[in-house]
Amino acid sequence: MYQSFDDESDSGAVPGRLQAFREELAARKLDGFLVPHSDEHQNEFLPASAERLRFLTGFTGSAGVAIILTKAAALFVDGRYSLQARAQIPDLFEVLQTPEAKASGWLKDNLPGGGAIGYDPKLHTVKEIERLTETLAKADIALKPQPTNPTDLIWRDRPAPPAAAVVPHPLEFAGRSAKEKLVEIRETLAKDKVDAGLLTLPDSIAWLFNIRGADIAHTPVALAFVLVSASGKASLFIDATKIGDNVRGHLADVAEIVSPGELEGRLTALGKSGALIRLDPETASMHFKQALEAAGAKIVFGDDPCILPKAIKSEAEIAGARAAHLRDGAAMARFLAWLDENASGGNVDEISAAERLEEFRRETGKLKDLSFDTISAAGAHGAIVHYRPTRATNAKIDPGTLFLIDSGGQYADGTTDVTRTIAIGQPTAEMKRHYTLVLKAHIAIATARFPKGSRGQDLDPFARRPLWDAGLDYDHGTGHGVGSFLSVHEPPQRLSRHGSVELKPGMILSNEPGLYREGGYGIRLETLILVTAPARIEGGDREMMAFETLTLVPFDRRLIDASLLSPEELRWLNTYHAEMREKIGPLLGEQDRSWLAGATAPMN
Amino acid sequence: MYQSFDDESDSGAVPGRLQAFREELAARKLDGFLVPHSDEHQNEFLPASAERLRFLTGFTGSAGVAIILTKAAALFVDGRYSLQARAQIPDLFEVLQTPEAKASGWLKDNLPGGGAIGYDPKLHTVKEIERLTETLAKADIALKPQPTNPTDLIWRDRPAPPAAAVVPHPLEFAGRSAKEKLVEIRETLAKDKVDAGLLTLPDSIAWLFNIRGADIAHTPVALAFVLVSASGKASLFIDATKIGDNVRGHLADVAEIVSPGELEGRLTALGKSGALIRLDPETASMHFKQALEAAGAKIVFGDDPCILPKAIKSEAEIAGARAAHLRDGAAMARFLAWLDENASGGNVDEISAAERLEEFRRETGKLKDLSFDTISAAGAHGAIVHYRPTRATNAKIDPGTLFLIDSGGQYADGTTDVTRTIAIGQPTAEMKRHYTLVLKAHIAIATARFPKGSRGQDLDPFARRPLWDAGLDYDHGTGHGVGSFLSVHEPPQRLSRHGSVELKPGMILSNEPGLYREGGYGIRLETLILVTAPARIEGGDREMMAFETLTLVPFDRRLIDASLLSPEELRWLNTYHAEMREKIGPLLGEQDRSWLAGATAPMN
Repeated sequence: MYQSFDDESDSGAVPGRLQAFREELAARKLDGFLVPHSDEHQNEFLPASAERLRFLTGFTGSAGVAIILTKAAALFVDGRYSLQARAQIPDLFEVLQTPEAKASGWLKDNLPGGGAIGYDPKLHTVKEIERLTETLAKADIALKPQPTNPTDLIWRDRPAPPAAAVVPHPLEFAGRSAKEKLVEIRETLAKDKVDAGLLTLPDSIAWLFNIRGADIAHTPVALAFVLVSASGKASLFIDATKIGDNVRGHLADVAEIVSPGELEGRLTALGKSGALIRLDPETASMHFKQALEAAGAKIVFGDDPCILPKAIKSEAEIAGARAAHLRDGAAMARFLAWLDENASGGNVDEISAAERLEEFRRETGKLKDLSFDTISAAGAHGAIVHYRPTRATNAKIDPGTLFLIDSGGQYADGTTDVTRTIAIGQPTAEMKRHYTLVLKAHIAIATARFPKGSRGQDLDPFARRPLWDAGLDYDHGTGHGVGSFLSVHEPPQRLSRHGSVELKPGMILSNEPGLYREGGYGIRLETLILVTAPARIEGGDREMMAFETLTLVPFDRRLIDASLLSPEELRWLNTYHAEMREKIGPLLGEQDRSWLAGATAPMN
Repeated sequence: MYQSFDDESDSGAVPGRLQAFREELAARKLDGFLVPHSDEHQNEFLPASAERLRFLTGFTGSAGVAIILTKAAALFVDGRYSLQARAQIPDLFEVLQTPEAKASGWLKDNLPGGGAIGYDPKLHTVKEIERLTETLAKADIALKPQPTNPTDLIWRDRPAPPAAAVVPHPLEFAGRSAKEKLVEIRETLAKDKVDAGLLTLPDSIAWLFNIRGADIAHTPVALAFVLVSASGKASLFIDATKIGDNVRGHLADVAEIVSPGELEGRLTALGKSGALIRLDPETASMHFKQALEAAGAKIVFGDDPCILPKAIKSEAEIAGARAAHLRDGAAMARFLAWLDENASGGNVDEISAAERLEEFRRETGKLKDLSFDTISAAGAHGAIVHYRPTRATNAKIDPGTLFLIDSGGQYADGTTDVTRTIAIGQPTAEMKRHYTLVLKAHIAIATARFPKGSRGQDLDPFARRPLWDAGLDYDHGTGHGVGSFLSVHEPPQRLSRHGSVELKPGMILSNEPGLYREGGYGIRLETLILVTAPARIEGGDREMMAFETLTLVPFDRRLIDASLLSPEELRWLNTYHAEMREKIGPLLGEQDRSWLAGATAPMN
């Protein structure tokens, strides 16, 4: 299985590790050290060899930062992880919740006379260190970059770094050759008149060269760095053992394969020649800024030039996304039919449901991975926005409750991400009212028309309005960007109050409003949507963009109070469900097809 | 009358003035000079003595900047003024439209080898000059502050600066004493540990000391500067002739009156003592930064500390706004009844309508001024967003057209601003459809509920949605802040895609979506709205803020296609109109009351 439900925290070993770590600090005359969750590529999911935060604290969450001082230590996590962190890690650490608690504030309180805090410059972005340096300077606390990471020195049984084989990503799915993409990236770099651009994001590199890897869970990338010079081949710094002959041939025209150990030397050489290098201060590590500047390079700060073109999907990627969603929709329909058949008997739990769904996806014969660990949440667990079941928390799915399942698959032609909330047994009137309000929020995004120049933040309020009108809201964004057989959370576009990036035709986003009743249930309804080209509207004088809904999975009719829907909303729902009967129906066996017919029957 | 319809451009004199101006430049060895519309206080409306841009170019608009080089000259205006500017000013100037054309781009093209451009540091904000300096540096163009303004030297018949008497603004309307406000402002300054704050905005000063003036049209302020020291009295730098004994008594506890000529000396003294001074870089002139720094002062940049508390109206100001809107609504009802009676005969033109409306407002006995020059726009003039009729453009209001009137009054208890669009004779089906779409946009704002922390940009999309759905839009914000017997355009809050300021209970804004058909007609529907305190909603779990609509003026039933309204929208409209019958009806004579009854009869 792609998902493990084991809770692998080994917090018993933490006190000894902490002591060894502090001995390292003393030897370096440091008052403390920053231990972020991040790795050298700012990956969302980490290889085991980069799980330094887990090693030192026992915390298994996917975001957080620890600060270890000679006497005190604290772990900072966001709201979704504070309970989990408190349960997992020993008392040696205070657990503090961001953004209310700030690392800088805690440091000032715990080092009232100032001091020196070490950090590994490979694990923090340029901007992160710059912001923190400025804040801490006021309290006489200096940040000291360290050439070696103390964790790495004391980590004796550290797993080897991943070395999964790289595979070519076929042109049939990518739609544009690496050569063509490289020309475009060079045009972007040429505008800044730089000699080279450094790429540090694995998904940018995977996109640029049309390659995929398996170094980390759920995101099919290979860990690597790239230098794109103004002309000639680009240099791909990657462990040669990952590169078979097929990939070598695939890359022959566009990139030389260079050992990662040579990257530093290349940067130094560039620096010595006084080269102008473009670096993304929001994603590249502080290490690169320091190394380049030390060597004499001049840096032009600018976005990773692959981010925007990667977000705008090619025609082939769009066709792939549609195909992946048909396949994934059929697997989801089989799962929902199975759930209806089995859950009312009380014999299904969170883990068995997630495993069954993974099996349906595998049976498509095309599944490469899950796009993230399935959130399979019974009853009150649904109100914990990023709940992930473990053997310890696994709950039965009981009649009279709501079941929330948020999951997705990685297919060679596209990445899926879908959430549905399902009535187990008879729902209450309040459940129906809440579900229908979230459905209204969902439809408000699905049906939006908007002019060129609109940003995600211009549309996010449409989803919230039906909830605001009812005195309700949800504390997360309405949607994130999604990659094409790449990261399920792909910047830069998003639907949120902070979504300041313009939406462009070809971008894929999620549409996932929700509603959470602590101790009761969670409702979230998520589909993926594609930004369409501006088009004329009868009687209008400006072209408007729109969304095409890619995900084809029924909403639960048993939870819809049709009297709360406007005629337009009801029409959208019935049309959406009809599309499913037409497109998903033929992919199902007779029994599931009959379930689908019932689940998508018109409402009025 | 408060409004003049004369077009006072004297462009015939421009060539001679331009020549004299260029002789000044030559004497100073400058390659050019910036001539903004602004004055030393960043006023929206200027006293005649500060109309330098008009003097030099002949352009009478309310925003723009000229650049005069030794050979070339250009005037930069926004879209609303490009036609007018081209008609008004001689060929000696290119007229360029912002934001498409940029002063910096034009300068680079016209000074390809670089050069020195002079500017008057009293007429530009700190930020303005900083931004421009950075942009021009790349083209080797340097900005040189000039101690004297060349325009002032060649302007022989320059009007005297205004010296209107200052009057106390009664506590009954202000709601908070100057003493109390000064304590609050000092608390804000204390957070930055500054020795003093400099106030340069006349409306901040009027608000802080509860005084009003008449130095400029439409905004009842006196031109002045203020230094708020950390303790003791504040210093009000103002021409003593404006201050009668009553005002002197009113201010005795809070401010010393100082001659404006002494301001520079005071700043120098503060600088020499090494004082820390707070200055608003977005509104204070570059002159103050330069003068303070030259004297040795340290500057802390921060918003003018009056801006936010001024925006949040006191209970008395809110009560005053309601009273002013009843009075103003009655005048508007009388006007609309008069218009219905007279316009169909073809005997009313734009100017006579605006004059008649001003008379109805005067007949309330409380009108202090108009809050801006009335936009009285017949037919196609309505599509020109900031159209203002002059003797030259004055048009008949013809049957079969739409008439747009945007106007407001300054009363001691409040400032009004209302736009209505009226059918003259029989409207077409398309007029009705467009009007109804704008009405839907208007209602979407009027009925919005929103949580604490919402910003104007979170609500602006609600107004646009009905138009976007129809392939339509408008190219201006949805609403601006409004003062309390102060500026009709009062920052910081606004409803727009750039409205990043949080809305707080007590703020007043306009709600004015529109739709413009070039060469055809313009539709705009504007009321003022008040942000209400968060309140529980039945069945909800979060308190929501809302808007109370202050303006009580009917929408034109003849232009409403009720079939396009949802039941909720129709209910809002009928409730709003019923409120008018109840509250405005009793203020009218029998005939007008009968007109109002018809104009507000329920629709279904």
